[in-house]
Amino acid sequence: MVKQPAAQSAKQKQNIAINGAGPVGALLAVMLAKKGYQVDLFESRPDSRKTNIYQGKSINLALSDRGWKALQAVGLDEEIRQHAIPMYCRIMHDENGQLSKLPYGKEQQAIWSVSRSGINEQLIDLAEQETSVNVHFDHHLSQLNFADKTAVYLTADKQQKIHQSDLVFGADGAFSKVRRLMQELPKERISYSMEYMPQSYMELSITANADGSHKLEKNALHIWPRKDFMLIALPNVDGSFTCTLFMNQQGEPSFESLNNETKVSAFFQQYFGEAMQYLANPVEDFLSKTASPLCLVHIYPWLVNDSVALIGDAAHAMVPYYGQGMNCGFEDCRVLAELVEEHQHQWPDILESYQQERKANGDAIIELAKRNFVEMSDLSGDANFLLRKKIEAKFHQMHPQLWVPLYSMVTFSPDIPYKTALAVGDIQREIMDEIMQLPNIENEWQQAHVYQTLLQLAEEKLINQQVGK
Amino acid sequence: MVKQPAAQSAKQKQNIAINGAGPVGALLAVMLAKKGYQVDLFESRPDSRKTNIYQGKSINLALSDRGWKALQAVGLDEEIRQHAIPMYCRIMHDENGQLSKLPYGKEQQAIWSVSRSGINEQLIDLAEQETSVNVHFDHHLSQLNFADKTAVYLTADKQQKIHQSDLVFGADGAFSKVRRLMQELPKERISYSMEYMPQSYMELSITANADGSHKLEKNALHIWPRKDFMLIALPNVDGSFTCTLFMNQQGEPSFESLNNETKVSAFFQQYFGEAMQYLANPVEDFLSKTASPLCLVHIYPWLVNDSVALIGDAAHAMVPYYGQGMNCGFEDCRVLAELVEEHQHQWPDILESYQQERKANGDAIIELAKRNFVEMSDLSGDANFLLRKKIEAKFHQMHPQLWVPLYSMVTFSPDIPYKTALAVGDIQREIMDEIMQLPNIENEWQQAHVYQTLLQLAEEKLINQQVGK
Repeated sequence: MVKQPAAQSAKQKQNIAINGAGPVGALLAVMLAKKGYQVDLFESRPDSRKTNIYQGKSINLALSDRGWKALQAVGLDEEIRQHAIPMYCRIMHDENGQLSKLPYGKEQQAIWSVSRSGINEQLIDLAEQETSVNVHFDHHLSQLNFADKTAVYLTADKQQKIHQSDLVFGADGAFSKVRRLMQELPKERISYSMEYMPQSYMELSITANADGSHKLEKNALHIWPRKDFMLIALPNVDGSFTCTLFMNQQGEPSFESLNNETKVSAFFQQYFGEAMQYLANPVEDFLSKTASPLCLVHIYPWLVNDSVALIGDAAHAMVPYYGQGMNCGFEDCRVLAELVEEHQHQWPDILESYQQERKANGDAIIELAKRNFVEMSDLSGDANFLLRKKIEAKFHQMHPQLWVPLYSMVTFSPDIPYKTALAVGDIQREIMDEIMQLPNIENEWQQAHVYQTLLQLAEEKLINQQVGK
Repeated sequence: MVKQPAAQSAKQKQNIAINGAGPVGALLAVMLAKKGYQVDLFESRPDSRKTNIYQGKSINLALSDRGWKALQAVGLDEEIRQHAIPMYCRIMHDENGQLSKLPYGKEQQAIWSVSRSGINEQLIDLAEQETSVNVHFDHHLSQLNFADKTAVYLTADKQQKIHQSDLVFGADGAFSKVRRLMQELPKERISYSMEYMPQSYMELSITANADGSHKLEKNALHIWPRKDFMLIALPNVDGSFTCTLFMNQQGEPSFESLNNETKVSAFFQQYFGEAMQYLANPVEDFLSKTASPLCLVHIYPWLVNDSVALIGDAAHAMVPYYGQGMNCGFEDCRVLAELVEEHQHQWPDILESYQQERKANGDAIIELAKRNFVEMSDLSGDANFLLRKKIEAKFHQMHPQLWVPLYSMVTFSPDIPYKTALAVGDIQREIMDEIMQLPNIENEWQQAHVYQTLLQLAEEKLINQQVGK
């Protein structure tokens, strides 16, 4: 399609302000710059490449196919992959120190462990290489005029800076300031929810061996599932693992109830005895750190005045149990960039379509991520659940189009929208509930009749579902 | 039980600040004064008894048994009843002007139409008669220190007033300032949602006849159900009716789409032809007024520091479709007052129990009210639905303990908690779904076998449900 002159001129006059230079904001800046826009990227915090703002915090993320597809769209995937570690399976550690393995998908399918600060700094480097991107650190958004898109920023030296743009994005995370300013608008009817989970989380760590090698199998995500709480570990390139303990904030046991060395020490010995040989000072860490809350954010609309929009966690904060927060934010960016072309740089249409397409998918992955706590912390240690996964994997091999396991739809199938994955996954669960009722299934699960029944049920119940776009 | 001296002294030192002098705040002030507390009741608006702050807005509310029970507990019921009109039934007006009647409960059971401003002013009068209540109008809450309960108010003449108390209540409505200040506390984990409904509402009116009589049957709530929208009318003591039009804010037809006289006039003629002979200038009113939004508010916790608590709409704003907003708020007050005795004036325990008991009930009535739009606007014009109601009413007469229709549980059974009503109502619906499938039910509904089947199903499915406390 040949671009019309009107669209072209519409494009040229647009200046875009992006608030929040986290991974999503930085990627969005690169993408919009590559579409020909002038982009100003504002970040309230100092430049982490110059100042250590993480204070020993080492957050890891799992990058999967939706994230890669977005990075690939702007040619950034190979650069990022150099610092990422593929994890091909979950390794569950039970209370007796017994290990069991569950592949994430087919052979060679992996989710990739990346350091949040590492990928963020890489993306900011790449944004700065774009001549039409200006990055402004230490710029704290204090006011935004939604009519003329004039923003007031407070800088580190207490100066006020005024910035006017044509379009504004809030990529400023779960506690987004752009979103809060939207909510204060008197005439907008903005539905909003912030839901705190019963669990909080705390980062712990496993250091590298003296020779720089990993103390646990490197290419895996390790889980110590203990039903109401769990510990997980993701590998880092320096041989260490970043661990996260997820546990209730209140009750027994909880971050509140474990309030002295005796209790904390007994807790780790009882539940994580095997992990204690790897963990670096978990009791001291536990007692000196404060657990962080986990929350879900829903908001609608994502747009005000056809020109201020939310993206990433600012629009749809979720819990980390599906490893999809950043992947979903990157997908937001990719879809938006595709809509820029599709609507020929006509922003009201682009943003309307963006909201239309992404809102339901954001809701779906928030729900899927919330449900996945039970799967990780409880079911992943359950024989019946593991059998279910094996049957699904085998059936997927036999009928790769008809049956893609839910985890694979979410993680390895970027062309299947989250909302489809959620809907199809619910039907698959019903079908598998029936299969697991078959007599003597634990012994007969490899027999042909099981897969005949499964095929029949799948054809009957999934036939009207569109898997894919 | 004899009061302990400690409890007595704890009681004597308590000063209580209530923010919001709406019906709930004013009733709470009376109740707490009667328990021996010093109460300061703050209202941001001027005194409506001296200044007309309603600007022609005449909101009506339906007071039902939960409200009456609370008023009775402090001996205010007879006073209020003098200005209330009993409504014994719904009268549905169809598009052809045909009327049908559906009783609310048993003979003599009614919901009572009261003017919101009227009942509010009566309750403020009654609060002022208590020597230990001080009412402060034109006091706009601007800051609240949740540690020492020092509040800063801005008065109409721009003065700052500081008020310190031992306990603080936020009875300041769906857009509560106390709640907003709670949410800004950095360390509290407050889950919150504000959900806008697709519908908005607009008040219209039917004036009295020249002789002061009512133009429509006085002792009824009139409904013009039109599926996606509806008009309702509640009687006033002066012979007029206050009408409310509920309709989508966007779409077709909607408050946004009906944007000129031709369209509005055609809309009223088409859908409310019969009502047009009664309505006072509906087209002009429609064009000159702005529709108001409807929203639901959920929040948890309702308490901060064991000494600042939310009550009424501030804790659980709902849609008006069940006529329970004020009733629920009054019930909050009654339960709280009972807990003051039960816990012998020990406030941390009182407030903890109050939250424990009321939160789930608030959630339940929010849900019931939301569902009731369909019942009022669509089903109340449906023959099948009316038959269902008749069968339930007949069965209720036969087995008054076993089967209380949902509407009656909510409206006429103040000893059945809302959460029980919701749970039991869901089971009743399943049972009635089966009954309505009986062959030829529309002709055979009065026959004994129907009630034998119903009894069997009810005993089977309701037996383990506790109806009542």
